[in-house]
Amino acid sequence: MTQLELARRGVVSAQMRAVAEQEGLEPEQVREGVAAGTIVIPANPCHRALKPRGIGAGLTTKVNANLGISTAFPDVAREQEKLEVAVEAGADAVMDLSTGEPEAVARCRRMVLEMSPVPVGTVPVYEAAARAQARHGAIVDMDSEELWEVIEEHAAAGVDFMTVHCGVTRRALERLRREGRITDVVSRGGALLVGWMLHHDRENPLYEDFPRLLEIARRYDVTLSLGDGMRPGCLADATDRAQLEELITLGELVDEARRAGVQVMVEGPGHVPLAQIEANVKLQKRLCHGAPFYVLGPLVTDVAPGWDHIAAAIGGAVAGAAGADFLCYVTPSEHLGLPGVAEVREGVVAARIAAHAADLAKGLRRAWEWDREMARARKTLNWARQLELAIDPLKARALWEQKNPAATGDGGVCSMCGPYCALRLVDAYLAGAGR
Amino acid sequence: MTQLELARRGVVSAQMRAVAEQEGLEPEQVREGVAAGTIVIPANPCHRALKPRGIGAGLTTKVNANLGISTAFPDVAREQEKLEVAVEAGADAVMDLSTGEPEAVARCRRMVLEMSPVPVGTVPVYEAAARAQARHGAIVDMDSEELWEVIEEHAAAGVDFMTVHCGVTRRALERLRREGRITDVVSRGGALLVGWMLHHDRENPLYEDFPRLLEIARRYDVTLSLGDGMRPGCLADATDRAQLEELITLGELVDEARRAGVQVMVEGPGHVPLAQIEANVKLQKRLCHGAPFYVLGPLVTDVAPGWDHIAAAIGGAVAGAAGADFLCYVTPSEHLGLPGVAEVREGVVAARIAAHAADLAKGLRRAWEWDREMARARKTLNWARQLELAIDPLKARALWEQKNPAATGDGGVCSMCGPYCALRLVDAYLAGAGR
Repeated sequence: MTQLELARRGVVSAQMRAVAEQEGLEPEQVREGVAAGTIVIPANPCHRALKPRGIGAGLTTKVNANLGISTAFPDVAREQEKLEVAVEAGADAVMDLSTGEPEAVARCRRMVLEMSPVPVGTVPVYEAAARAQARHGAIVDMDSEELWEVIEEHAAAGVDFMTVHCGVTRRALERLRREGRITDVVSRGGALLVGWMLHHDRENPLYEDFPRLLEIARRYDVTLSLGDGMRPGCLADATDRAQLEELITLGELVDEARRAGVQVMVEGPGHVPLAQIEANVKLQKRLCHGAPFYVLGPLVTDVAPGWDHIAAAIGGAVAGAAGADFLCYVTPSEHLGLPGVAEVREGVVAARIAAHAADLAKGLRRAWEWDREMARARKTLNWARQLELAIDPLKARALWEQKNPAATGDGGVCSMCGPYCALRLVDAYLAGAGR
Repeated sequence: MTQLELARRGVVSAQMRAVAEQEGLEPEQVREGVAAGTIVIPANPCHRALKPRGIGAGLTTKVNANLGISTAFPDVAREQEKLEVAVEAGADAVMDLSTGEPEAVARCRRMVLEMSPVPVGTVPVYEAAARAQARHGAIVDMDSEELWEVIEEHAAAGVDFMTVHCGVTRRALERLRREGRITDVVSRGGALLVGWMLHHDRENPLYEDFPRLLEIARRYDVTLSLGDGMRPGCLADATDRAQLEELITLGELVDEARRAGVQVMVEGPGHVPLAQIEANVKLQKRLCHGAPFYVLGPLVTDVAPGWDHIAAAIGGAVAGAAGADFLCYVTPSEHLGLPGVAEVREGVVAARIAAHAADLAKGLRRAWEWDREMARARKTLNWARQLELAIDPLKARALWEQKNPAATGDGGVCSMCGPYCALRLVDAYLAGAGR
């Protein structure tokens, strides 16, 4: 039985209990959220190393890190290093988005599933495309059965959540054409399906045979992550009719998945101007009946290659504050090439800052306690405690040591203000004034 | 005559014309904004190297970079390097916040005023405190005449805008005491004044003798930047009664300054939870009758030392979208020590991303054109143009070259997706389908 089926029968599973403990909630609160479909716990029983996490309403905002080989960078060992760094930096989930030579793609996936303590997601159509390219010499010559075969394989191997672009329908494509976008389709999975659909003049098999997908997902308790193949690739394309057409379809599929006992979340953009982010989140929550919302960024400008982790942190924080539940990180390399290990770490920390800013906006008690604790450590110039409480203690400590080579230890001032330290100046006087 | 006095008499000054040209506006629009006090042009005629910038409603959101020596890092040459890097990275203004040995402090200020092509700001009470420390052996033994002397010196030397903490009044201090904050006062200038006021049991001279300040400011056309000495030092202290008491006083002083023909803007926090930022901006705009708002960050969490440029970019973008006009950068070193050259650059770029996200939210035509142009370059895989359009072409190019050693040039794909490039896959098919 899936977590959703268990929750509906009133059963509090070990996974629900673990999530409740992490979040500081009652297990019953988590069970209710899972039963209602507003919380998902991507936890495939075949993923042995997993320590489950919950994603959804009332929980802390979660962060995903993408990794995976590409044709130009096929080294699996490097991806393992990225996985370790992402988990160390605090990622709550990872997605293996490998493309390239089919053997290497499969090897990378096995490595991630074996090593990852956090939920693992994949986009099966990538591997199906890689195989089609190898077998037939062209991606579009993929047989739809080959796609189903990969989906089943991923589920059996322990993948916890899968991005499936079920909303890339002929109707959505027609709306895309009428819209007249600048960047058309920028979702890689969406593009693979669009190419296939146009080439074969057929409907998307993931939409047409959605019940088959549900059957596999239910069997392995794979959480479906309904992908947004129509997501905008630039600010000018955001929140348009093609995107909304797809979102409405995804909402309908959420209902179907829930009826079948399958856990489901919905993916969102992408590139969105700051002033449209809240509307995007509210629309998703309404149209998808409260399903958890997993956003990519969103990036609040198109012009920040090299710094897209910051453009995404701005968008992610605002999306999270409006109710988004799960932020996919963006690294500084986005729009330029495959990220390296250092960029993976930067991407995770930036997304975690956004998620935490959102948690404060959501009013989560523990989030506020964390900041208050830091404020108290600052007030008392307790440096050891400040470094401990930092969202990234490694970097905070490195910078602190570099800036304060002759550090006077706790109670001392830092090299920015030295004897002009505001905290110290005022403390002496307010204390003297009878505080 | 000040820019404000000129504008009121219907004169379009060379400075207003220069600002109009930068912004793509009619000179008359800028003149009207200056006359109404919703735009300031900090342009001291004694600052010879200056290319003036406007700050305020209807203009692009501007970015300030702080620099200056400290007791632990007294090297003026290093600050010159920071100035050059900040301007190269796109800072619209710099503030020299030097503290330490009085001779070195004065030398750093002279260097900045001589070299800076962008408006220069200072906080005169720092230098007054440095001199008092040297002359009397204690900052609190500063004579208020010594403060006036520094203010006049800075004005005569060409400082374009000055932070003056005129709202740190006895009444504000009383409200601070009743509030019961965690971090009390974290503004360095505010703290210096609080210490002085409590030690001497006197009112703040900058408040008591505000007309004297106005007289100096008018004579040299120094724009007053009314500092927020009561700004919160942590999320838990944000938007409290002490902060609002001060803001109301600053609003009254805005009216007085305008009556005296003195350009004036208002400074704001600091540490503010995401969900309170818009309220802070709307309150400032209302209480200060539309005076330009200059915010420090704001930081949306207290727990990001080492990454505070990102916490500030989130807050700055949201503040700017709500109407803030001028963002003071925050570097990764904030809360840890004095920033180095590399961190200055990071701080400027992060703040510029926030400012640009805000400009898009404000609906500025040129901001949207920039992003659309980037989107078109992406769609056509025109890499040369993408790198040119990047907000930081240096970093974008460096990453691009590192990630794509065998780059195929324009029209080629990048190392992230390689043959699975969504843009290319879809373009071929949508083209074939008669687009």
